Amino acid sequence: MCSERQTLLYSADLIRADLNPRVVPAHEEIMAGEGEALLDEGSASPGIGSPHAIPGPTSLNFGKFMKAFQDYYPENLAHCYGCGRLNTQGHQIKTYWDGDETVTRFTPEACHTAVPGFTYGGLIASLIDCHSTGTAAAAMYRAEGREMDTLPAFRFVTGSLKVDFLKPTPIASVLEIRGRVKEIKGRKVIVETTVWVDGVATARGDVVAVQMPESFGA
Amino acid sequence: MCSERQTLLYSADLIRADLNPRVVPAHEEIMAGEGEALLDEGSASPGIGSPHAIPGPTSLNFGKFMKAFQDYYPENLAHCYGCGRLNTQGHQIKTYWDGDETVTRFTPEACHTAVPGFTYGGLIASLIDCHSTGTAAAAMYRAEGREMDTLPAFRFVTGSLKVDFLKPTPIASVLEIRGRVKEIKGRKVIVETTVWVDGVATARGDVVAVQMPESFGA
Repeated sequence: MCSERQTLLYSADLIRADLNPRVVPAHEEIMAGEGEALLDEGSASPGIGSPHAIPGPTSLNFGKFMKAFQDYYPENLAHCYGCGRLNTQGHQIKTYWDGDETVTRFTPEACHTAVPGFTYGGLIASLIDCHSTGTAAAAMYRAEGREMDTLPAFRFVTGSLKVDFLKPTPIASVLEIRGRVKEIKGRKVIVETTVWVDGVATARGDVVAVQMPESFGA
Repeated sequence: MCSERQTLLYSADLIRADLNPRVVPAHEEIMAGEGEALLDEGSASPGIGSPHAIPGPTSLNFGKFMKAFQDYYPENLAHCYGCGRLNTQGHQIKTYWDGDETVTRFTPEACHTAVPGFTYGGLIASLIDCHSTGTAAAAMYRAEGREMDTLPAFRFVTGSLKVDFLKPTPIASVLEIRGRVKEIKGRKVIVETTVWVDGVATARGDVVAVQMPESFGA
């Protein structure tokens, strides 16, 4: 979380980022402009569906009537800087099902700069990471035909994280982060997650999420 | 950057993290305990040298007489949340040569929690990312036989980032982040970066850093 004075350091067109709540209800429109190509080779192939493909009834419920995946995390496992609802200084992302995909929306703050005007890669990696572990947990409940408020609770950690930065990600934007479960293998879930800005994929991640062992950190 | 009150949320053994400066002079000792295995398979193979391998004379100069790589970044490119010296709310990492390796030391704050007692993966990914782009820039100057205060300035962005989380990373620790240049190919530099805590590798990253095009974000 940035402090408010940070916005003074950067150009005026970034101030919008602070005027918006960081976690934006999914029924709001994405307003950012397109990024330009970051790399001089390679290009994003169409991956996970465009953010504009959100069907109405589901999206209208986001954040208003539905609990997010992270709202179900057990209290002792809800302190993560990226996704813990109890970490008041963290990103507190909120992830929901949207059909077979999962979606998180997030507005970077001015301090989350890479070079002025663009979001730094560490934030993008963080969002992909926590979005994907949340997706893994939700997918495991679905696979077992259980609701997320039933026990035993699933909580996943990251075994590996791969992010391809396809284009610079504008900072004065709502980022739409969409995940898709590629495979469930025992205690592992493979998730592909894409960051979208106004219909343009700016980063794509592959995450191997691993069900947290009871011995974690013991 | 966390606010101080955040430390109240967590257990007392985390408070140390706030008592230490985030960027620790390299001549201080690493004091954290070892992490335990995160995953039920696979294991860290020995990679980049142990942090205890720092030779005396070089390390004694860290942060005292030497400028870090990031201190040479052009002013307009020194706002990154991870490594920009002008981003007062960011991590402001400082990276130095240590022989053929590069080293950054960083102490997470209490809010950078994954689960209580351990550092969240997004921070680890961020540190690996910015450490590696800094390493790429420094390596390119070396390859050209130039000092980092000569023009034209090199600044790298991340094309791809892969992080394997080998073990939980204790949060009340000094992280030692060590990089090694695997290859320079035209405008790309491949860097392998490892996060060490008290001689134990907790995460390993591979970064493809790309020299920032003049048209970046244009």
